Amino acid sequence: MNDASPYEPVDADVEERIRKSYERQALMRHLGARLELVAQGRVHVVLPGGEHLTGHHGHIHPGATSAVADTAGEFAALTLVGPRDDVVGFEYKINFTAPAEGDHLEAIGTVIRAGRTLSVSRLEVFGVDGSRRRLVATGQQTLLRVAVP
Amino acid sequence: MNDASPYEPVDADVEERIRKSYERQALMRHLGARLELVAQGRVHVVLPGGEHLTGHHGHIHPGATSAVADTAGEFAALTLVGPRDDVVGFEYKINFTAPAEGDHLEAIGTVIRAGRTLSVSRLEVFGVDGSRRRLVATGQQTLLRVAVP
Amino acid sequence: MNDASPYEPVDADVEERIRKSYERQALMRHLGARLELVAQGRVHVVLPGGEHLTGHHGHIHPGATSAVADTAGEFAALTLVGPRDDVVGFEYKINFTAPAEGDHLEAIGTVIRAGRTLSVSRLEVFGVDGSRRRLVATGQQTLLRVAVP
Amino acid sequence: MNDASPYEPVDADVEERIRKSYERQALMRHLGARLELVAQGRVHVVLPGGEHLTGHHGHIHPGATSAVADTAGEFAALTLVGPRDDVVGFEYKINFTAPAEGDHLEAIGTVIRAGRTLSVSRLEVFGVDGSRRRLVATGQQTLLRVAVP
Repeated sequence: MNDASPYEPVDADVEERIRKSYERQALMRHLGARLELVAQGRVHVVLPGGEHLTGHHGHIHPGATSAVADTAGEFAALTLVGPRDDVVGFEYKINFTAPAEGDHLEAIGTVIRAGRTLSVSRLEVFGVDGSRRRLVATGQQTLLRVAVP
Repeated sequence: MNDASPYEPVDADVEERIRKSYERQALMRHLGARLELVAQGRVHVVLPGGEHLTGHHGHIHPGATSAVADTAGEFAALTLVGPRDDVVGFEYKINFTAPAEGDHLEAIGTVIRAGRTLSVSRLEVFGVDGSRRRLVATGQQTLLRVAVP
Repeated sequence: MNDASPYEPVDADVEERIRKSYERQALMRHLGARLELVAQGRVHVVLPGGEHLTGHHGHIHPGATSAVADTAGEFAALTLVGPRDDVVGFEYKINFTAPAEGDHLEAIGTVIRAGRTLSVSRLEVFGVDGSRRRLVATGQQTLLRVAVP
Repeated sequence: MNDASPYEPVDADVEERIRKSYERQALMRHLGARLELVAQGRVHVVLPGGEHLTGHHGHIHPGATSAVADTAGEFAALTLVGPRDDVVGFEYKINFTAPAEGDHLEAIGTVIRAGRTLSVSRLEVFGVDGSRRRLVATGQQTLLRVAVP
C-alpha cells in the first residue's frame, strides 16, 4: 500500500477507457498534470512544478496538490469497475506533511477497499527532485459507484 | 456559522495585508478566483465557472472546488492573527454534496475555533446561478499558527 | 446549523422507532449515554461525565466523545428516512477543540444534506457545566441509506 | 505501513512509560481493551468482542472501533517523543470498511509522519476470528506534541 507496493497491469481496453476519461478533465490540462501509470486499483498522476501553481508561501498550492491527489484516487477506483459503471469521489481528507516542492509532484491513488457501492482510496503525494523523494501529502477518499448515464 | 451569519468588518490595514497575501497566490490567479469578502474570521472567494475548470463529469472539478475552499478557510484564519504571525492549513476534509456548477462558485471560510496554536475553519462552497444558490461542498480544516519567517 | 438553530418535531411513531433503535445500542448504555432530543434531522445525545470515561489526560476520552457524536449524527439521519430504510454512517472526521469536561457532554447531530443515497451530518459536542457551555468537538459524517434487511 | 510492516522494539523504559499512560485510561478498561504491542512508532490495541459493545446493527459499535483506533494512533506517536513530551491527537478521520465483528478487534496505530510539532498516524482496525482477519476500519489522525505539564 505504499509507493513500493507491487501492482498489476490493466488490460489495454481498460487503460484506453481510463485515459479517455482523463483527457476529458480540462482542469488537469490547465494545471499541466499528466496521467502516468494506470494499474489495477492504482494510478499515478504527475504534476510538473511551475510558477502558475504556487500559493502565498511560495510552494505548490495545497489546492493543486489536492486536485491531483483526488484525481489519482478516483481514477484508481475507476480501473476496478466495468465499462458501464462510473465512480464518483464524494469526500476526502488530506494532510499536508511537508512543503510541496520539487521538480514535480507524483500523486498516487491506491484502492484499499473496493466495494459494490462504496470504495476507499488511499492518497499519497510525493515531491520529487532527482533521486530525492518526499511525502508531501497523505489522505483518504471515499467513492460511490454509479451507472454510466 | 452558515452563509447568513452576521460578520464584523476588519480594519483597513488587516484587509490590505490579507489581500497582499492573496495576490501572491499564483494558483488562484491561474484558476481565475478572486478574493471577495474579508471580514473577522470570515472570507469569501469567488470562482467564475469556465471551460478550463471542468472534470470528466462535465462539472467544475472537485480539485478546483477544494482549492478555493481551502484558500477561503486559510485566509479566514489569517484575519484573526497579527502581522507577525502566519497560519498554515495543514489538513482538511471535504464532502461534495452536489455537482459544482453555476455562473460561479462562492467559497466561504469561517473560523469556528481560534486557538493560540491550532484553529479550525468551516468550509462551505455554493454554486450560484442568478438567485439560485446551492451547497456544493462542505468541509472542515485545521490550521497551525506560525511566526512569520 | 448550530446549537441554537430551530428544529421541527417528528411524529410520535418516528420518535418511537428511533428510540427503539437507540435502545438496541448496548455501547450507549455501557457508557451511560441517553437519547435526549429527537427532531427532524436533528438528535441530541447526552453523556453524563464519570470516572469510567476518562483518558490519560484526565478528561473524557476522545473515544467516548466520538461515540456519542457518531451516534447523534447517525440517528439524526435516521429521522429523515421511512420505516423500511436504515442509514449507516460509514465515515466521519472529528476535531477536538477543547478538553472534554463538564457535568455532561451534549452531542448534537444535524443533517446538512439529505440525499437519496448519501447524506451528510454535522457533529457538534458541547461540554456543559451549569450555564457554561463549550464546544469540545466538531465534525462531519457521511451516511448511506440502505434497505432494512 | 500495513499490518505486515516490520517494526522496531522500544527500550524497556519507554515501554514502561507508555504502559503507565495507557493504564490511566479508564475508558479502555471500561471497554475491555488492552495494549498489546508497543514498538517504535507503532502500537496495537486489542478489543475482545462483547455484548456491551454492540450498536443497533448488532456489530461492534463504530464508537468502540473509533476509541481503540484513536488510542492506538496516539500511543504510537507517544513512543517517538521523550519523557518530557506528550502528544495529543486533536483530529482524525475514519472509514468503516466492513461490519466490526470477530473474536476481537485489533487496532493498529502507525506513525507515518513524525514532526517536531505535528505528527500523523495511520489507523487500521482488523476484525479477527481465528485465522480470518479483515480490515473493518481505516483512518488518519493528526497529533500535536506538547510539553508535559
